[in-house]
Amino acid sequence: MSESTITPRSKDYAQWYQDVIREAQLAEPAEVVRGCMVVRPHGWAIWERIQAELDRRFKATGHKNAAFPLLIPLSFLQKEAQHAEGFALECAVVTHARLKKGPDGTIVPDNELEEPYIVRPTSETIIGHFFAKWIDSWRDLPLLINQWGNVMRWELRTRLFLRTGEFWWQEGHTAHATHKEAEEEVARMLDIYREVYHDVLAVPVIRGAKTENERFAGAIETFCVEALMQDGKALQGATSHDLGQNFGKAFNITFQNQSGQREHVWQTSWGASTRMIGALIMAHSDDDGLVLPPKLAPIHVAIVPIYKTPEERAQVVEAARRIAAELRDDGLTVELDDRDEVRPGAKYFEWERKGVPLRLELGPRDLAEKSVMGKLRLSELDERGKPKKVKLPVDGIGAHVGKLLDGFQRTLFERALARTRASTVQVDSWQEFLDVFQGEGSKFVYAHWDGTGETEKAIKDETKATIRCLPLAADGPPAEAGKCVKTGKPSARRVLFAKAY
Amino acid sequence: MSESTITPRSKDYAQWYQDVIREAQLAEPAEVVRGCMVVRPHGWAIWERIQAELDRRFKATGHKNAAFPLLIPLSFLQKEAQHAEGFALECAVVTHARLKKGPDGTIVPDNELEEPYIVRPTSETIIGHFFAKWIDSWRDLPLLINQWGNVMRWELRTRLFLRTGEFWWQEGHTAHATHKEAEEEVARMLDIYREVYHDVLAVPVIRGAKTENERFAGAIETFCVEALMQDGKALQGATSHDLGQNFGKAFNITFQNQSGQREHVWQTSWGASTRMIGALIMAHSDDDGLVLPPKLAPIHVAIVPIYKTPEERAQVVEAARRIAAELRDDGLTVELDDRDEVRPGAKYFEWERKGVPLRLELGPRDLAEKSVMGKLRLSELDERGKPKKVKLPVDGIGAHVGKLLDGFQRTLFERALARTRASTVQVDSWQEFLDVFQGEGSKFVYAHWDGTGETEKAIKDETKATIRCLPLAADGPPAEAGKCVKTGKPSARRVLFAKAY
Repeated sequence: MSESTITPRSKDYAQWYQDVIREAQLAEPAEVVRGCMVVRPHGWAIWERIQAELDRRFKATGHKNAAFPLLIPLSFLQKEAQHAEGFALECAVVTHARLKKGPDGTIVPDNELEEPYIVRPTSETIIGHFFAKWIDSWRDLPLLINQWGNVMRWELRTRLFLRTGEFWWQEGHTAHATHKEAEEEVARMLDIYREVYHDVLAVPVIRGAKTENERFAGAIETFCVEALMQDGKALQGATSHDLGQNFGKAFNITFQNQSGQREHVWQTSWGASTRMIGALIMAHSDDDGLVLPPKLAPIHVAIVPIYKTPEERAQVVEAARRIAAELRDDGLTVELDDRDEVRPGAKYFEWERKGVPLRLELGPRDLAEKSVMGKLRLSELDERGKPKKVKLPVDGIGAHVGKLLDGFQRTLFERALARTRASTVQVDSWQEFLDVFQGEGSKFVYAHWDGTGETEKAIKDETKATIRCLPLAADGPPAEAGKCVKTGKPSARRVLFAKAY
Repeated sequence: MSESTITPRSKDYAQWYQDVIREAQLAEPAEVVRGCMVVRPHGWAIWERIQAELDRRFKATGHKNAAFPLLIPLSFLQKEAQHAEGFALECAVVTHARLKKGPDGTIVPDNELEEPYIVRPTSETIIGHFFAKWIDSWRDLPLLINQWGNVMRWELRTRLFLRTGEFWWQEGHTAHATHKEAEEEVARMLDIYREVYHDVLAVPVIRGAKTENERFAGAIETFCVEALMQDGKALQGATSHDLGQNFGKAFNITFQNQSGQREHVWQTSWGASTRMIGALIMAHSDDDGLVLPPKLAPIHVAIVPIYKTPEERAQVVEAARRIAAELRDDGLTVELDDRDEVRPGAKYFEWERKGVPLRLELGPRDLAEKSVMGKLRLSELDERGKPKKVKLPVDGIGAHVGKLLDGFQRTLFERALARTRASTVQVDSWQEFLDVFQGEGSKFVYAHWDGTGETEKAIKDETKATIRCLPLAADGPPAEAGKCVKTGKPSARRVLFAKAY
């Protein structure tokens, strides 16, 4: 394997994305299972870190994890009409409960079920069924549940992490006594997603509400966080839904209020998935491969010993072991790459492709100077056009490395934020709008819209750009009335357009 | 709810088990999904703790987590003949990839698949497929993978945690260059299961090998840990399989060895599931409900304030808050139960049923004495026949509580070990054997066996007792030749019999 196995972004962005994933060994198409993927250890380790960061915040806000069945009876889908329309049309249908040997010795399905099941595409219906059993009084509210698991939506056009038949996610499901409490919950969870995107993934996002067309099927309002990828396309990073009383009524989830009357509960649901890894890859990586923020990197530091003779090797590897031990004591994950059969340059490329934030190079001269050379995964170029390295004293190496990694985490966010800002524009004429979105072009475009689904659809049909969200006041441009970029009709505010993943 | 909602063990052990689960809100049958269960928050919190303890040990021994598809192509089952025979006969079969509205408006399956999939009952086959792609050279070995997830085996007779259609588990899958390395891996993982059972669940287990009849389908050797429940029945707690080259040959998983020749890999697989929660419940709980070892308890301490007047309430709750904060600083989970509408006695029962290891009672008199009354979930009776309480100084409460909980963890193990020893016998005559297993009777019985499957089956048919394992030398009785308890034929060693869950 050589550096050249990653297609440059400028040449073919979609191929670059696939190459980065393959070379970092994050995941691969399952092939033998329609539209599904295998998440390899390096990819799953990133997901475990994302899970831990989310889970900690969910628990700190009073949520508890539980596990509901993988299979959902077909009849459950029919209980909430909008939900059935919008969901579960492309899904895995379980029709038999047994296998048997057929006459020719092959194995065939047997014992057909009276009512088929579907593999859950999301769990509002099955969880609604149990909420109805568990909730009886206002004392049982709020009920704050989260589930980590796998779901299936058998879409035909798949792309690793971004859209696969099976994917892994968390889905929060809560029930409340009042609409106000449910609305607060929806906002609280949206803010947690934003916090994790900003502080952990180092990916800036815009919070906002979806248009009616783009709402979750069965929700009265859907909020989302949207991130801008390097090619100018938007990626929906997570969603938080106000379900109103729709599922409460469909599944008869009621409680006795403090006045003794029975009411339907108000519900929310919210989710984020392995798609976050796709956002991570596309926000930071470069033509050398994966770039990871330290907070999510499965390996923080790779140490590459440099030597010529066996004597040098023994000394250098011994010193590298001590450095590795000290860094591990600080809670860092360290790979000491002492493979004798691989040259340093090849090692550099390999750890770069895997997104290791910091490489330490240690040779006899460094050893003599009681120092080690550090190279961040992204670094400025020196006067000779080579990536800058920093000389770090071995004494107190933990503190030096910690500082470098903290700085790298911040740098990644600032870099992504600068890129997002540079690709965010306000557009006021239809021609300008067409110019931004011509061909494969896309940016975050704030433009006025007349508020109708017809105009939304007409814009999409003509440009492939969709309304990503109606941004929250804190995240969008200043409130300002204007005229729809497409129809010229009155508009109360700008909304966020982009082509999307 | 009152204490009497739990059926005593002496009256109906199976009902007691269900009652304990229901009253502790650990899980419930899904009902609407054939044979499946919902794991409620209190049950899932225990599973998360078990997962963390196992996962930490898996990682410390070099294993990495990954995720493979939920669905397995039917044809994969036919590649390893024994595996197909023993597995996946009762399973969920996916035959369609879409739903559509039928003529009468109901939703029906559509888009029939050319080849059906089954929901994984275990993943040897699908993982074997990918191992074949990933392994090329001896340098790629050992490959040490683990997966956390859900699987389905659609058994008809279900029992919460012990046997359900869907369950949650981990499955380790490893590939090695030599049989010896694979055998070492099998033993290493068996020892990890034993360690977690002993040190975390506080449940003593016997390690041993399964007989040929009881082996995992496709394995050349299966090892297990077996625990004795309070009713004398055995529970298989986890398994570790030596797969030999069976799957390697079926899925053509080969590597080039250091001499340049291609060989098939040697594989292992090993798993433990939410069944562990069943073992935990049946090993420790009593007629008052769930008993949990501190290392797995989602709530370590429940504080119940005792008061009569609002003034007393304010003082006592304020002091309780300070104690709770101090204990939380020590990493403990504390519930301060300040519900005004529930009497202390009802609170006691509730926290006992949920298995909280330690209750602290705090009233005005305790406050005046700067002390708090502690009551462990299991405690000796005093001279008046009441459970002993201990007076703890509020000053330095963290250390006192820590000591009590550590002691409770040890007590639970010693109690379970004493019970297991008291119910373990050596039996040398067939009449004695029949006596032990008559009716619902069961114990751990060490008896000689002639080593044949016929005798094993005859004993099972007559007594319902099965050979749980051929114990490892370290765990079983001293090596000693003898005569088969059933046939009188020569026997090289005693094996472990019991009725089993």
